[in-house]
Amino acid sequence: MPGFFTELLAKIGHGVAPEFVSKTAINGFAKATTSRPRPYSLWSDAKSKDVGKLCDYVSWPSLTDRTFSGRHLRAASDNYVRNLPVDSAYLSPSDYGDVTGLFKRDNQIDCPRSSLLFPFFAQWFTDSFLRVDPTDKRKNTSNHEIDLCQIYGLKEETTLMLRTMAGDGKLKSQFVNGEEFPDNLYNDNGSVKPEYEKLPYVEDRRAEYIRGRFGDAEARKKNYFASGLERGNSTFGYTAISTLFLREHNRLCDELKTRNSTWDDERLFQTARNINIVLLLNIVIEDYINHISPVEAPIFMVDNSFLEEEEWYRTNWISLEFDLLYRWHGLIPDKVTIGGQHYNEREFMLNNSVLLESGLGAIIDGGSSQRAGKVSLHNTPDFLLAAEHSAIQLGREFRLQSFNDYRVQFGEDELDDFDDLTSDKELANKLKELYGDVDNVEFFVGLFAEDPSDGALFGDLMTTMVASDAFTQALTNPLLSKHILNAQNFTKYGMKAIKNTHSLRDLVDRNVENPSSFKVSFEL
Amino acid sequence: MPGFFTELLAKIGHGVAPEFVSKTAINGFAKATTSRPRPYSLWSDAKSKDVGKLCDYVSWPSLTDRTFSGRHLRAASDNYVRNLPVDSAYLSPSDYGDVTGLFKRDNQIDCPRSSLLFPFFAQWFTDSFLRVDPTDKRKNTSNHEIDLCQIYGLKEETTLMLRTMAGDGKLKSQFVNGEEFPDNLYNDNGSVKPEYEKLPYVEDRRAEYIRGRFGDAEARKKNYFASGLERGNSTFGYTAISTLFLREHNRLCDELKTRNSTWDDERLFQTARNINIVLLLNIVIEDYINHISPVEAPIFMVDNSFLEEEEWYRTNWISLEFDLLYRWHGLIPDKVTIGGQHYNEREFMLNNSVLLESGLGAIIDGGSSQRAGKVSLHNTPDFLLAAEHSAIQLGREFRLQSFNDYRVQFGEDELDDFDDLTSDKELANKLKELYGDVDNVEFFVGLFAEDPSDGALFGDLMTTMVASDAFTQALTNPLLSKHILNAQNFTKYGMKAIKNTHSLRDLVDRNVENPSSFKVSFEL
Repeated sequence: MPGFFTELLAKIGHGVAPEFVSKTAINGFAKATTSRPRPYSLWSDAKSKDVGKLCDYVSWPSLTDRTFSGRHLRAASDNYVRNLPVDSAYLSPSDYGDVTGLFKRDNQIDCPRSSLLFPFFAQWFTDSFLRVDPTDKRKNTSNHEIDLCQIYGLKEETTLMLRTMAGDGKLKSQFVNGEEFPDNLYNDNGSVKPEYEKLPYVEDRRAEYIRGRFGDAEARKKNYFASGLERGNSTFGYTAISTLFLREHNRLCDELKTRNSTWDDERLFQTARNINIVLLLNIVIEDYINHISPVEAPIFMVDNSFLEEEEWYRTNWISLEFDLLYRWHGLIPDKVTIGGQHYNEREFMLNNSVLLESGLGAIIDGGSSQRAGKVSLHNTPDFLLAAEHSAIQLGREFRLQSFNDYRVQFGEDELDDFDDLTSDKELANKLKELYGDVDNVEFFVGLFAEDPSDGALFGDLMTTMVASDAFTQALTNPLLSKHILNAQNFTKYGMKAIKNTHSLRDLVDRNVENPSSFKVSFEL
Repeated sequence: MPGFFTELLAKIGHGVAPEFVSKTAINGFAKATTSRPRPYSLWSDAKSKDVGKLCDYVSWPSLTDRTFSGRHLRAASDNYVRNLPVDSAYLSPSDYGDVTGLFKRDNQIDCPRSSLLFPFFAQWFTDSFLRVDPTDKRKNTSNHEIDLCQIYGLKEETTLMLRTMAGDGKLKSQFVNGEEFPDNLYNDNGSVKPEYEKLPYVEDRRAEYIRGRFGDAEARKKNYFASGLERGNSTFGYTAISTLFLREHNRLCDELKTRNSTWDDERLFQTARNINIVLLLNIVIEDYINHISPVEAPIFMVDNSFLEEEEWYRTNWISLEFDLLYRWHGLIPDKVTIGGQHYNEREFMLNNSVLLESGLGAIIDGGSSQRAGKVSLHNTPDFLLAAEHSAIQLGREFRLQSFNDYRVQFGEDELDDFDDLTSDKELANKLKELYGDVDNVEFFVGLFAEDPSDGALFGDLMTTMVASDAFTQALTNPLLSKHILNAQNFTKYGMKAIKNTHSLRDLVDRNVENPSSFKVSFEL
C-alpha cells in the first residue's frame, strides 16, 4: 500500500475529520504521478500513418489531439520489447502462447470480497470511456468524460434518437411485466426500427458481428435494446445497470416537471441528464471506489470544495495504460447465477431475455449474492483468453515500458526480485524463467502478478494507477465545479437527489418495486 | 485602471522583483472573473437548431462542446434586448443605423502610442483563434489554442499539404528577389496548384468570394500564398507576419538539422513548430501585451514557474465577448504608407504584390513608422462600417448583457452616469438620447465608448477583459507546462532561441537582411 495511505489510515478514528481524510487520500493518489498535460501520446508520424512507428518525442498533436490515446511514459527501447518472451499467436483456449498462458484459469480463484455486481458495474462503467478505436489502435472514440454515454450516446445526434422529444424530457423506454426497460432496437420482424436506423453503431459491421456472434443471433435480436453505445447489449449485467440509470433519468424528469411546469422537453432532459451524471459520480467515488479501496471504512467522498485548487485539475485524456490495467477478466466467474438458475457465458452475453424475465431487482440481487473471481494471473476464463493475448500484443506494439518503470513513475520502489512481486513460488519461478530479471517484467503481466496488500483487491501499482486516473478524471467533471454545482443549475430537488445518493442501493430503492427484498452490494 | 493594478504599479522600482510584479499582474487580471468552466455557451436547443433560441440554463453540451462558442454571462432578458435603440439595416457607408453611426469615422482620430505594426499583428494574431463559423454563428472553427495555424493550418491534413516532406522539416516556400515567402497558391494560368487543391478553404465558396471581391481578382490571385487559414491573404500586413514566422520555422529546421543529423523530416518539423509556437507566445506576452499595458515599463513576462498552480489554469474556450471586444477597427488608418507610397484599403487588402516588391523589411518598417488610429467610437473607416453593424447585431442576437453587467462580472464598479463613461459631452448626450440610462448601454458600444485611463489604449473594461482572456488562454498552452518546456523536448538550441526571443524585433533580426535598417515596433 502506498506509504502516504498507510500513514493516513493510522489517523482514522482519532478525531480526524472525514473530509480531511478523503481530501488527503484523493490528493495522495492524484499526485502519485506528474499532472497532465502528458508529453507523449500514441500519435505517430503524420505522414506514414504507420501504427508501429511511435513518436518518442513531443509534438503538437501529442499534446493536443485527444483522438489519439495518451500514454503515461514514453515508448521503451526497441531492444527491451524485442527481448520480451515470445507469446506465440493465440489459436484456441487450448493452444496459446507462454505469456497468455500466465492468465489461463484452471480452477476459479475467488475474490476475497467482491460480489459479481462489482464486475457488472466495472464493465458497464469503463466501456464508456475506455474506447480503443478498432480501425486504428492508436486512436480512441472516447469523450474522455464520465457522461453516461451508455444511455445518452457519445454525440448529440445519438441522444436525439434516444429521446422521446415529447415534452417530458425522457428517454424512450418500454414496459415489460410492469417494469421499465430501454426501448427495443429491432422490430419483431428483425429489421432495425426506422427511428434507430441512424444510430452510429447500426451500420457498423464490427458491432453487427458482435451482435451476431451466436448462432441464434436472430432470436436474441428481438430483445436487444436501443442504447448509447455499440456494446449496449453485451451482457445482462451491463443492461441491468443501463436500465437502472435510464429509470432514474425518467423518474427525475417526472419530478422536475412537477416542480417546473413551464419547462420544455429540452430543459427537462438537459437538467435530468446533468443530475444523473452527478449521481453516477457519487456512486463511482463513494460506492465503487470505496469498495476498491483496501480499507473497510468508506473514506472517499465527493467533496468539491478543494478540487479546482489542485494542480491535477486538468483536461482529461484517457491513456493506453489506463485502458490495459482495467482488463479485470479474472472477476468473471465460471457461471452466473440468478435466482438459482445458472448461466454460462453464452447465456450471459447478448441475452436480455434473462433481464426481461427475471426483472431488474433479481439481476442486481443475483449479482450481489454471488462471489466474483479474483483479479490475478491464472484466473481468466477460456472465452476471454484471446482478449489477454491481444492486450499483451497491444502493450508491446506501443512499446510500454516495464512494470518496474511504471512503479517508479507512480512513486513506488522498484522491485528487486520476483519474490517481491508474488509470494506464489511456482509463479515466481515461471516468471523468472520467462523474463530472467524482474526489471524485464512487462507492465501488463506485472500488474496482474503483483500480490495484493492485506484487504486490497489488487497489487499496489494497480491500486495506485486506478485511483490516480479515476480521481483525476472523475473529479474534474465540469458538473462538479463549485460555480456549476448549485441549486440554480440543478434545482433544489436535484441538489437533494445528489445529496441523498451515495450508492447503487439508493438508485435501486428509488427505481425497483419492493427494493428491500433485493441485495445491492459490491461487497459480498 | 483596475485597483490592484494601480497599487502594483506603485511598487515598481522599489526593489520589487520583476517576476513578482509580472506574476501579481497576470494573476490580478486572470482572476478578475470566475475561472472556466463557464456555465453557458451559445449552444441552444438540440432539436430546433434555432440560432435565436438561446439556452439560459446549464446543459452538458454548454459545458463540454467547444464547437459552440463560450459566453461569460448568461443571456439577458428578451425585454432588455427589445428595448435597445433601433439600429436600422446597414445599407451603405452613407446610410446606416443610429448605433452603427456611433462608430463612423469623420476624421481619423490618432492613437496616442501605437504604430500600424500593432494592428498588422493584432489582426493576424486574433484571426487564428477568433473564428465564428459563418454557416452557424453559434459555433466556431477555432482550435482554442495559440498554435500558429496561420502557417500550419487548423488540422494535420492541411499541415501535410503545406510541408515539403523532403527530409528538412520545412514549410513550402518560394524565393523572390532573394527573399523567402510562402509558396504560391495558384499556377500562372490561374488554376489552384494540384498540391493545394484539397486545402480546406480552396473549395469554400465564402473564401472564394473574399478572394474574388475586387474586379481585378484574377490578376491579384497570381500572388496569393498557400496558407493555413482561409484569410491567409487578407492584407499585406497579415502576410508580412506570416512570412516572418514561416522564415523562422525554416531557419529553425536548418539549425536543428545541423545539430541533429539523424532526425527525420517529421521530428525536425514537429520540434521546429513547437519552438516557433513558444516564440510567438513570448512575443504575445512580452512585446504585444506589454504594448497594450497602460504603463511604459514592460512588466509582463513568460514565467512558467507558477502557472500550473493557479485556479485559472483551465481548458481554453473562446467566448463571444472575446470575439466582439477584439474588433479594433479604429486602429486602421485611412491609408497605409510603405516607403513613401500610399495605399488605400483596396490596395492594402488581398494584394501581396506590395510585399513581394517592397520586401518584408520594408513592410514591417512602414508599419512601425506610421501611426495607427485610436480604438474608439467615431473612428471606424467606411469600409468596415458594415462589420460594426454585424457586430452589434451579433451581440443582440445572442442577448449579451449590458456593459455595466460585464463591468460587475470583471470586478469593476457599475457606472452611474454617461459622464463616467466618456468625457466627450457630445457623445455622452448622444448615448443618453439613445439608451436613456447608462445601465442600458450595450456591451459592444460601451467597450468602445469608455475613455481610456492615462496612457492606456482602451477603457478599463476592454483592458481587463483582453488581459484576462489573453493570459488565461495563452499561458495555459501545453508547451509552457513545466514538464514539457525543457531541453529534452525542445533541444538546447531551441531553449536558447526561446530565451533570446522577446519581441518581433528579435525575429526580424534573424530573418531579414540588414535588419538594423528597419524599424520594428508596436510603439510609435
